[in-house]
Amino acid sequence: EIAQFFTRMLRWSAAIIPMAIIVGSVCAFFLWSLHEATRIRFENPWLLWLLPVGGFAVGWLYHQFGKSSERGNNLLMDEIHEPGGGVPARMAPLVLFGTLATHLFGGSAGREGTAVQIGGSIASAFCRFFRLDAPSVRILLMAGIAAGFGAVFGTPLAGAVFALEVLTIGRLDYAALLPCLIAAVVGDWTCHEWGIGHTHYQISYLASALSPSANFHLDFWLMAKIALAAIAFGLASRLFATLSHRLSAFFKSTVKYPPFRPVLGGLMVIALFYLVGTADYLGLGVSSPDPGAVTLETLFSSATIHPWSWLWKIIFTVVTLSSGFKGGEVTPLFFIGAALGNALSGAMGAPPDLFAALGFVAVFAGATNTPLACTLMGIELFGATHSVYMAVACTIAYLCSGHSSIYLSQRLGIPKL
Amino acid sequence: EIAQFFTRMLRWSAAIIPMAIIVGSVCAFFLWSLHEATRIRFENPWLLWLLPVGGFAVGWLYHQFGKSSERGNNLLMDEIHEPGGGVPARMAPLVLFGTLATHLFGGSAGREGTAVQIGGSIASAFCRFFRLDAPSVRILLMAGIAAGFGAVFGTPLAGAVFALEVLTIGRLDYAALLPCLIAAVVGDWTCHEWGIGHTHYQISYLASALSPSANFHLDFWLMAKIALAAIAFGLASRLFATLSHRLSAFFKSTVKYPPFRPVLGGLMVIALFYLVGTADYLGLGVSSPDPGAVTLETLFSSATIHPWSWLWKIIFTVVTLSSGFKGGEVTPLFFIGAALGNALSGAMGAPPDLFAALGFVAVFAGATNTPLACTLMGIELFGATHSVYMAVACTIAYLCSGHSSIYLSQRLGIPKL
Repeated sequence: EIAQFFTRMLRWSAAIIPMAIIVGSVCAFFLWSLHEATRIRFENPWLLWLLPVGGFAVGWLYHQFGKSSERGNNLLMDEIHEPGGGVPARMAPLVLFGTLATHLFGGSAGREGTAVQIGGSIASAFCRFFRLDAPSVRILLMAGIAAGFGAVFGTPLAGAVFALEVLTIGRLDYAALLPCLIAAVVGDWTCHEWGIGHTHYQISYLASALSPSANFHLDFWLMAKIALAAIAFGLASRLFATLSHRLSAFFKSTVKYPPFRPVLGGLMVIALFYLVGTADYLGLGVSSPDPGAVTLETLFSSATIHPWSWLWKIIFTVVTLSSGFKGGEVTPLFFIGAALGNALSGAMGAPPDLFAALGFVAVFAGATNTPLACTLMGIELFGATHSVYMAVACTIAYLCSGHSSIYLSQRLGIPKL
Repeated sequence: EIAQFFTRMLRWSAAIIPMAIIVGSVCAFFLWSLHEATRIRFENPWLLWLLPVGGFAVGWLYHQFGKSSERGNNLLMDEIHEPGGGVPARMAPLVLFGTLATHLFGGSAGREGTAVQIGGSIASAFCRFFRLDAPSVRILLMAGIAAGFGAVFGTPLAGAVFALEVLTIGRLDYAALLPCLIAAVVGDWTCHEWGIGHTHYQISYLASALSPSANFHLDFWLMAKIALAAIAFGLASRLFATLSHRLSAFFKSTVKYPPFRPVLGGLMVIALFYLVGTADYLGLGVSSPDPGAVTLETLFSSATIHPWSWLWKIIFTVVTLSSGFKGGEVTPLFFIGAALGNALSGAMGAPPDLFAALGFVAVFAGATNTPLACTLMGIELFGATHSVYMAVACTIAYLCSGHSSIYLSQRLGIPKL
């Protein structure tokens, strides 16, 4: 039995380690080129005017050559639930190009969708190459998602658990635990070896607590405030998911020729930019050359942030992605959560950096129904000091987001109520 | 839907918060009295001679008054899988008394079984008081386990996930996620409010790494050594579980009158004590007045430890518990893992404190099939710096322990291979 186990483990490693190295390398290239695209946009703000043109290019490419890749993360999930037509290899280059175009011209989008689709598409190519059977395809696709997610955010544990947890609401099985863990660790590692770093967030609240066990510091009132804030985080997730699906349906019913949808979306983003009068909600939103801008970084400071920033970011992102631009929802969800947390901390008299961090992970947990992965992500990004608060915020947000999800192919395993 | 959700959440909280406060308080009393019992034994080493007498007292009490409580954690799991006869209220005082007697006279045992059974028995009393239906009984019993586990080790996240994860190998469902989390946090909190602290372990290896994201420090060779060590951790778990079940069967077939079984077990522990010539493997093994003793604390130092300490602790513990003494397996499993980790670090040229910490959580993960809870426990006890190593060690140990488990009522959900 043990010998059989080692044979299997070695066989899996032989497929998963090279796959994860490739996924990690492509993700490193993606993160580097995303950084460049964002830098070029900051230096040439007029590029926003070309967003409708970029949208047409993205839409046309997907319309002409995309086949099933248009379905993105949902196609991956369907192929894991029931292996069928496979994930086309073209998904990786298409989503990479589409995301870079989206970010170069100022669409509000993320990067996890891109990384996950790169991972899934490369994993699918491995499956075809090794002629794997359906159960193995399932595991390798999950490992591909884990590798992409772990690499793009620098959070391997969150990546591994995300790949297990995202498929089905309320249930998790361990068949792919080790493959996902290996893939996420190797993917993240490869990305670091290419010299790609990740943004560091610092929570100064209780930062002097050296080890989580050495200083017990649960505060009753703070916990009550966090529970209340987490309800708001869950409702924000729900709003994001609902608006996404409604606006997608609107674009599909209003604009018959698909490549015109992102053109309309691009025009709407330009209109929103003039309406709100700031470039803060364009692009990734992680950092900005303007120190006064609202970004993920400044949301962790105690600076006063516009209390409705989170809602603007929802609107900008939903318009961008629902119309057919590419990227992902997760980094905007981080921004939305951090902005909402920052705003609530002011109203509730709570530490703004801690609340920004809680919103960061909890809105994501609610929108994707992955409370464990998001708790682990909170620990990986912000340390273990606040792990109980992270878990409470992610779990309550998960419960309050209802059975909505940004992924339509996510299945309902165990109802939340 | 949201209103219905809040009603449910409030109703759950109304049952779970008082339950967890009681469980946390009883666990605080238990930890205090366990500390006293251990102190008295250290001051009066001759008490070991009374171990067979103490064993008879424990065995006789369970035989006369125990009813189903003899089945301990397995009864709890069966009641969660299929609510039936309920968990008797007498389980809590019996296991509390039995554990204190075991430790006072120097049996090698732990405390998690006691805490979990206190939690389950109090939760079951709540279920009867509120006349809950079967699905609610299931959730409340899980919350009771979470409260006991979280309180006794000071690790609320591990407690909550342990209660979800321990029932079924390879699968986890989220129906009880929030109740378990609330119960574990409140139980742990209450225990702290009573002034009960927990042992702090310090890993000096890379202790200066301030945040896990700020310093990326995966080391390829260290990871390879950890993967190898984790295989050994998993095999040690397997050995522990197999020996436990065999020796239990031996005591049952050899000694017909149950109260005589711990008498024989006690005599065997005394013989082992003379055979090995040290008191280090008696009792809990967390600390000792003798600075040269092998304890969980000294295993985290770089002191040279007897390379077979782990095996001795397995033998002492299996004899103690299989013969009918009370306590739990987890703290001895911590000791076994830390001792094996420490020994392997010497052979492999790896940091002994890190390997002690990895063994600590990984042997437990293998023996109970709870890799996620043990990863979280590692993070809660040792900080987030080594979270990737913790996850890898727990996952590999979990896979290498086979489908054996120290809990016979644990079900097999998804096979590991």
